[in-house]
Amino acid sequence: MLYLVGLGLADETDITVRGLEVVKKAERVYLEAYTSILLVDKAKLEAFYGREVIEADRELVETGSDDILANADKVDVAFLVVGDPFGATTHTDLVLRARELGIESKVIPNASIMSGIGCTGLQLYNFGQTVSMVFFTETWKPSSYYDRVKENVQLGLHTLVLLDIKVKEQSLENMARGRLIYEPARYMTVAQCASQMLETEEERKEGVWGPDSLAVGAARVGAADQELVAGTLSELAQVDMGRPLHSLVLLGRRAHDLEKDYIRQFAVDEATFNAAWQKGGYGSS
Amino acid sequence: MLYLVGLGLADETDITVRGLEVVKKAERVYLEAYTSILLVDKAKLEAFYGREVIEADRELVETGSDDILANADKVDVAFLVVGDPFGATTHTDLVLRARELGIESKVIPNASIMSGIGCTGLQLYNFGQTVSMVFFTETWKPSSYYDRVKENVQLGLHTLVLLDIKVKEQSLENMARGRLIYEPARYMTVAQCASQMLETEEERKEGVWGPDSLAVGAARVGAADQELVAGTLSELAQVDMGRPLHSLVLLGRRAHDLEKDYIRQFAVDEATFNAAWQKGGYGSS
Repeated sequence: MLYLVGLGLADETDITVRGLEVVKKAERVYLEAYTSILLVDKAKLEAFYGREVIEADRELVETGSDDILANADKVDVAFLVVGDPFGATTHTDLVLRARELGIESKVIPNASIMSGIGCTGLQLYNFGQTVSMVFFTETWKPSSYYDRVKENVQLGLHTLVLLDIKVKEQSLENMARGRLIYEPARYMTVAQCASQMLETEEERKEGVWGPDSLAVGAARVGAADQELVAGTLSELAQVDMGRPLHSLVLLGRRAHDLEKDYIRQFAVDEATFNAAWQKGGYGSS
Repeated sequence: MLYLVGLGLADETDITVRGLEVVKKAERVYLEAYTSILLVDKAKLEAFYGREVIEADRELVETGSDDILANADKVDVAFLVVGDPFGATTHTDLVLRARELGIESKVIPNASIMSGIGCTGLQLYNFGQTVSMVFFTETWKPSSYYDRVKENVQLGLHTLVLLDIKVKEQSLENMARGRLIYEPARYMTVAQCASQMLETEEERKEGVWGPDSLAVGAARVGAADQELVAGTLSELAQVDMGRPLHSLVLLGRRAHDLEKDYIRQFAVDEATFNAAWQKGGYGSS
């Protein structure tokens, strides 16, 4: 049996009781560690589980999945995924491959950022489609996400923006030379996301958002040091929310009063917040 | 401290390790049992936790929240919520009330149906706003959800439809006479939801969906006997998916091939599925 086990969002104790039972009994335990990270390292997980955990990088999952699945028709294999196994990144390909090999799969769900973002007090009902923000470079500033957010904005819906992480990436030079040297891990911050959004708006100029648009920054959702900040995009572009992971929600116009009362608690500046709320026509439907 | 603890979706072992620690130590433990249910009863939870659990009905939470919060500035109170505390139903009002009373709150996230629905293999990125479906009566068939789904359909996005549950409801007669007699609990099925959708379309006639529109029914997400069914709305209107809870996803046109391959595994009828896929223009963007 292949078990896909969600680990939740913050630390080793976010696994479910059922998930922990599976991990303790499985023959092999893999950890998918390239699309998201827990706020604790592998050694801490191993100590908590009392057993070895094999790190599964993108290459192993995408091209070496038969190694992961070896023998899983006879023994139990656990594949651990930060968040939920079918959350922001789905692992349907692994399940389909298992099925082709005659191996059954079971999923142990857990919190995902796609629902965990409800901690902002924004109603999940009022969210449109989720988008991802990648790190811009000098020459590559993809703006296709702009069109998706525009669809949400036109309907007055909130948008969850998931922020890029770069783990175990090679520089172009090292890749070309076949050197397995990896760049330091990078995690996009709320401030970087907000400035990239302002950059895209300056380029596209369709007025989907602007410096006074309201947004909520969320850092380390579900952790003891979780932090939430509400403010305009230009305020958020200046904010320091500490260590990763970060996410951002662009507020939709349909936001209602209970949502307002909740997010105003953690406004960068209450006066700016109130002014931006009124100016932006939030709270209308 | 007020702890809002997510219980996840299926049974007593879906609580997180951290959540269980909180429950074991708290002075009082409440269970919110009117917006969703676990697939196990309160007695089983109490046996698992080794302690008493107080059932919190709608009245207690909405008008008697100060009883729940009594003394919570000095002792720990745990408020258990099926799914995630800020998932399909948010408990922001309780947190705001606690704050007014000078009581701190902490949330222990867990799986919510809003992300758990990823078990269908449909990408959460491709979902638009979520809607709720209430039980129709002879005289009350609200169709405001139709307009929301229409917005998703026009964008080619999937729609998660959450199905009504009626727990501890009084009949009009008993309510009028002040008799605290409750009707048996009712949970909407995928089949009921699909037929109500077809009824609404017949009334509204804007062609947002039809009998050949593809949808996925999900029953008992996250449980050992989880069941998924893909088919046309007219097929789903006939399907029996067993005990609650059920949810339905109306497929959006932007569905892509990996999603198709995944949901076709559990098609009611593969030939009908393929025909409906082609006729409906799914897979285009």
